[in-house]
Amino acid sequence: MIVVMRSNATEESIQTVLTRLSDHKLTGHISQGEERTIIGVVGAAIPPTLCEEMERMEGVQQALRITRPYKLAAREFHPLDTVVMVRGIPVGGKGCVVMAGPCAVESEQQIVETARSVKAAGATMLRGGAFKPRSSPYTFRGLGEIGLQLLALAREETGLPIVTEVMTPTDVELVARYADVLQIGARNMQNYQLLEEVGRSGLPVMLKRGLSATFEEWLLSAEYIIAQNNPNVILCERGIRTFETATRNTMDINAIALAKRRTHLPVISDPSHGTGKWYLVVPLALASLAAGADGVIIEVHPDPDRAQSDGGQSLTFENFDRLMPQINAVASAIGRSLITSSNLIEKPVPYNGREVI
Amino acid sequence: MIVVMRSNATEESIQTVLTRLSDHKLTGHISQGEERTIIGVVGAAIPPTLCEEMERMEGVQQALRITRPYKLAAREFHPLDTVVMVRGIPVGGKGCVVMAGPCAVESEQQIVETARSVKAAGATMLRGGAFKPRSSPYTFRGLGEIGLQLLALAREETGLPIVTEVMTPTDVELVARYADVLQIGARNMQNYQLLEEVGRSGLPVMLKRGLSATFEEWLLSAEYIIAQNNPNVILCERGIRTFETATRNTMDINAIALAKRRTHLPVISDPSHGTGKWYLVVPLALASLAAGADGVIIEVHPDPDRAQSDGGQSLTFENFDRLMPQINAVASAIGRSLITSSNLIEKPVPYNGREVI
Amino acid sequence: MIVVMRSNATEESIQTVLTRLSDHKLTGHISQGEERTIIGVVGAAIPPTLCEEMERMEGVQQALRITRPYKLAAREFHPLDTVVMVRGIPVGGKGCVVMAGPCAVESEQQIVETARSVKAAGATMLRGGAFKPRSSPYTFRGLGEIGLQLLALAREETGLPIVTEVMTPTDVELVARYADVLQIGARNMQNYQLLEEVGRSGLPVMLKRGLSATFEEWLLSAEYIIAQNNPNVILCERGIRTFETATRNTMDINAIALAKRRTHLPVISDPSHGTGKWYLVVPLALASLAAGADGVIIEVHPDPDRAQSDGGQSLTFENFDRLMPQINAVASAIGRSLITSSNLIEKPVPYNGREVI
Amino acid sequence: MIVVMRSNATEESIQTVLTRLSDHKLTGHISQGEERTIIGVVGAAIPPTLCEEMERMEGVQQALRITRPYKLAAREFHPLDTVVMVRGIPVGGKGCVVMAGPCAVESEQQIVETARSVKAAGATMLRGGAFKPRSSPYTFRGLGEIGLQLLALAREETGLPIVTEVMTPTDVELVARYADVLQIGARNMQNYQLLEEVGRSGLPVMLKRGLSATFEEWLLSAEYIIAQNNPNVILCERGIRTFETATRNTMDINAIALAKRRTHLPVISDPSHGTGKWYLVVPLALASLAAGADGVIIEVHPDPDRAQSDGGQSLTFENFDRLMPQINAVASAIGRSLITSSNLIEKPVPYNGREVI
Repeated sequence: MIVVMRSNATEESIQTVLTRLSDHKLTGHISQGEERTIIGVVGAAIPPTLCEEMERMEGVQQALRITRPYKLAAREFHPLDTVVMVRGIPVGGKGCVVMAGPCAVESEQQIVETARSVKAAGATMLRGGAFKPRSSPYTFRGLGEIGLQLLALAREETGLPIVTEVMTPTDVELVARYADVLQIGARNMQNYQLLEEVGRSGLPVMLKRGLSATFEEWLLSAEYIIAQNNPNVILCERGIRTFETATRNTMDINAIALAKRRTHLPVISDPSHGTGKWYLVVPLALASLAAGADGVIIEVHPDPDRAQSDGGQSLTFENFDRLMPQINAVASAIGRSLITSSNLIEKPVPYNGREVI
Repeated sequence: MIVVMRSNATEESIQTVLTRLSDHKLTGHISQGEERTIIGVVGAAIPPTLCEEMERMEGVQQALRITRPYKLAAREFHPLDTVVMVRGIPVGGKGCVVMAGPCAVESEQQIVETARSVKAAGATMLRGGAFKPRSSPYTFRGLGEIGLQLLALAREETGLPIVTEVMTPTDVELVARYADVLQIGARNMQNYQLLEEVGRSGLPVMLKRGLSATFEEWLLSAEYIIAQNNPNVILCERGIRTFETATRNTMDINAIALAKRRTHLPVISDPSHGTGKWYLVVPLALASLAAGADGVIIEVHPDPDRAQSDGGQSLTFENFDRLMPQINAVASAIGRSLITSSNLIEKPVPYNGREVI
Repeated sequence: MIVVMRSNATEESIQTVLTRLSDHKLTGHISQGEERTIIGVVGAAIPPTLCEEMERMEGVQQALRITRPYKLAAREFHPLDTVVMVRGIPVGGKGCVVMAGPCAVESEQQIVETARSVKAAGATMLRGGAFKPRSSPYTFRGLGEIGLQLLALAREETGLPIVTEVMTPTDVELVARYADVLQIGARNMQNYQLLEEVGRSGLPVMLKRGLSATFEEWLLSAEYIIAQNNPNVILCERGIRTFETATRNTMDINAIALAKRRTHLPVISDPSHGTGKWYLVVPLALASLAAGADGVIIEVHPDPDRAQSDGGQSLTFENFDRLMPQINAVASAIGRSLITSSNLIEKPVPYNGREVI
Repeated sequence: MIVVMRSNATEESIQTVLTRLSDHKLTGHISQGEERTIIGVVGAAIPPTLCEEMERMEGVQQALRITRPYKLAAREFHPLDTVVMVRGIPVGGKGCVVMAGPCAVESEQQIVETARSVKAAGATMLRGGAFKPRSSPYTFRGLGEIGLQLLALAREETGLPIVTEVMTPTDVELVARYADVLQIGARNMQNYQLLEEVGRSGLPVMLKRGLSATFEEWLLSAEYIIAQNNPNVILCERGIRTFETATRNTMDINAIALAKRRTHLPVISDPSHGTGKWYLVVPLALASLAAGADGVIIEVHPDPDRAQSDGGQSLTFENFDRLMPQINAVASAIGRSLITSSNLIEKPVPYNGREVI
């Protein structure tokens, strides 16, 4: 940290700053400029709120943090890529994954039919929501545990691992009995009790970026999970809120490329939520992979016109079938390959010592 | 709702739309233009997702909702102002309230001293966090139940009702044993289980606007609470996230004025979080009242330099003392008055959970 | 400036940085921490692009500017308030001003009638556009010089000084022959040739903040004008673009209060554009004054329903009449007063281009 | 357009609306719902401000435009892709183009050397700024006409057509004597006189999206140019301003894909400005092409560390050399090809009857 004193700061106020630093077992190195004094702060553990504290002190103009506030998620301290294993499928390695399925699980037929169709097209995992966060109290909020059971059934039928959302700490145990990847939705990115609870579960966690979360806040939320000794964190960019209303959200493809540089965690892209329009899903899925994403998560529905949620951004089976060869081509162009369903272990094994169904 | 057909929509696709509407027990009125057909949708209950559903249909260009998605919170259906009673203090009436206190409860001395000081200056309620949501897992997260007990102690000493945050559904019962107003923080504005749980508590709820929540989403979240038969909702504007970094957030004073027009709920302004800088708290508190806010919530700390959180935006006792007469003057200028501590019931009654006056 | 080296920076790269600094006639003071080296940069003139240059160098992690990039506009170097005189009316002093009039000048009757009405209500200046920037090429773009002549006529009739926009450098001379205050619109805040041209005119300039301009960029644009030896700059906050669509823009009242602290320039607030809704103009005008604005600019139209532009945000004569006493009351509450038309010089003097009183 | 009446609108106010529509030679079709009346507006030419006008009228709740406000730029009325020819190079066809060069022209050696290097690597055009818009009045603002002459020299040496910015209407004639493509910078996207002036030049125009311009505003600005009978408009996405500060801007890749759907104009992507970081330029260039961009514009500098502007986002010659094969691979993957310098006409021909040089 660097503490910049005002040009008119007194010698006394400089001394007070040094004393305060020393209270924190930190040392201040003075750099005396022509206009002002700058204090470089050195020490083992700088408290996260020190910046704020310093800026309140008399004579201080600014205090500047110079290290990133996240450690466990930072590539700086963990140069190699983390590969999260999901029932034998590596997320974050050389291969790319495709997670596909409906926004919400609606019925046995809907989810099993979709699972079969996306598997045939080459998808590697099945997504589907049993618990749905909805802005309005008057809309469909998911089938709950029945939805989880239907997902498990679809997994039995196809071997595709399941990605599904958990919304509240008390549901983690329940959802973890079914899910292969616990999804944290954008609205819950800073629901800290929930982050810690999924951290404690030990299961792979896909952490969606909040609608207005900065890159740094996103990684700090990952830090909450990893801090529970759960390194199996998959980041998911799903669009941010900007002034633009022509699309539902603005996909932040910059953030995907930046994440591959600043962290060691795998990054998935969600062009369905990121655009809100089915006809933009294909170009944005390809763009995400070209930018370095380790996979995409795509909404697919047998009859998007009649979907109970987010139909407008769901692909039909036909459109998903058309997307997959394009994903393959772009992955190859950048020296990666798609992990297709033929790579899957035929008989699902219990995950990580955890009895799943 | 209005369904706008494409200029090249076929007669068949128009019929399909009409049939679909009729499946929902709705009627479509056709308005045949020179360029295109427009269908006005009429019926008792339009499903919240109908817009999305229609836009997926062949030949449909756009579907436009023409009523607001919130009902219980809308002034249209409830023209009179809601006044929320908090231990005999009306929030949302002709008077304005001032909630003041530290960001986080840190010690008995800190909270009791602050309570006495802000009461003496004329504050009407005491704020203080026992459970703190923090972006980083490495910062102080509050004293928990001990913090609640210290708040209760400060209330006994001063008679000031308590406003404090609850962060997770399972904590609602605990926090409700102590709090007079349950605060929902910005990060939890769309934590729907939590909204329902505080709704069921029946206690007054202060609902902070999410950092990137639209005006409409904010009111939909209020709707979640009211839908649990709890009409005691107080809105709180606390700044939104924009591109501007010169201040921590951007206070949306427009939203305060708009809320007074579109809803019947009281609106409080939080210039401490909304600006992030103590020296902007005074002008923005005055601005909020001038715009129609029913009160302000202000962070006050005996020693902001050493506060465990948000010191940079906290007023000292002296600065708070200087603020209060200015608040009085602006309130008078717009024909309102400040509810001061002398209006409080002299002898605090024993607090027994749910029996809110 | 401070240059933060990477933790693994070599001694050689540190030397290269020092040499480069010395090429710029700057000195680097080394502060050797446990983890990394920090270099404090000292010297008379740090080039504006040095930050960027340093961050490209090997071994450099970050370069941080520690002084503000604007000087002439900064209160730090000019502690006293600037008062801009407009035909004898002080803008930025103890009094507040009210500029009022239609968005666009449409006819002699319209502008003269409006000028008389707003003068009678107590307005201090007349606003009106002769050149209108419009997003669409298919909308009304103003009467041009005829509009200016009509404004001058209205000034003769009422004595109210004229505020009007100039959109392009080649029009400055023409507009300056009529205007008392040259307005730079939000879209032109970074039209640098235009800024320099109005700077050279010597006339008072009202500089609207760009829709997405940061606080700092706004002041840098003011700097462009002042750098032409024209200190007569009036800032104007008119709302920024955010994700919120319930109002046309988001008034950044924080920025008004911050501007009064960081600069010595007067600040005017434009709640008509800042909200886009006539019924929000009154509360936001009052809020702006309570936050410290030196005045407001309000759109008033004899028949807003039939205005050729921005009718939705214009007040009728009646509503403007109702606003003025409220402005007076709030101004008094914060110890200021409104400069009313009775303060104006009774007999308007012939206007001769540059000789501003 | 659709006019939605309030639920309590009187018959009289409905009649007033119909009369007003008829004043505009428009017809209103009434659709009588249970709750409210809706009026569908039909007619040849709906004035652009009618929405606003209607919403001011008594009894009107909302007026909704249902056609896009741009016509000439809309694919709806011009289904085939526009291909803009630049000295024999098609922009917007099956091939992709790469424009490369320094942010600013600094010297003969710098620009000629860069032109040769990027041509050798396969670039199709040369970019370089002679007139630079800069936020601060204290930074380098380009070499002016000398810069243009140096660009022409580099074109003579390499055959690469020139893309360069023009900042003010009076400079258009001068810049058009040298440039093959006139660039309108982001800050000038709504400088309407400038748009019309470059429109009148007949030269190809590359229109950068404003930092906070909506998709629709961007196309309306294109409309200004096309309305001068100049169909040679190339759109350029260069990042928008959002809350995110980890990158300089946020590339809106959604907008690239959407532009290919809603307009017939070619779209170029500028990842240098869109990210602000040289190490993000490669992934975002590839992402843009994968999303459907017709080309990219990349900043390349012989010595980015010493560039007079934007060094931090410029590629070295080596990094640009590494980028080109990747661009080729991704272009192939999506069925397109890169137009390389070998496709160029050896001897530059006069453009479009206009004597260039």
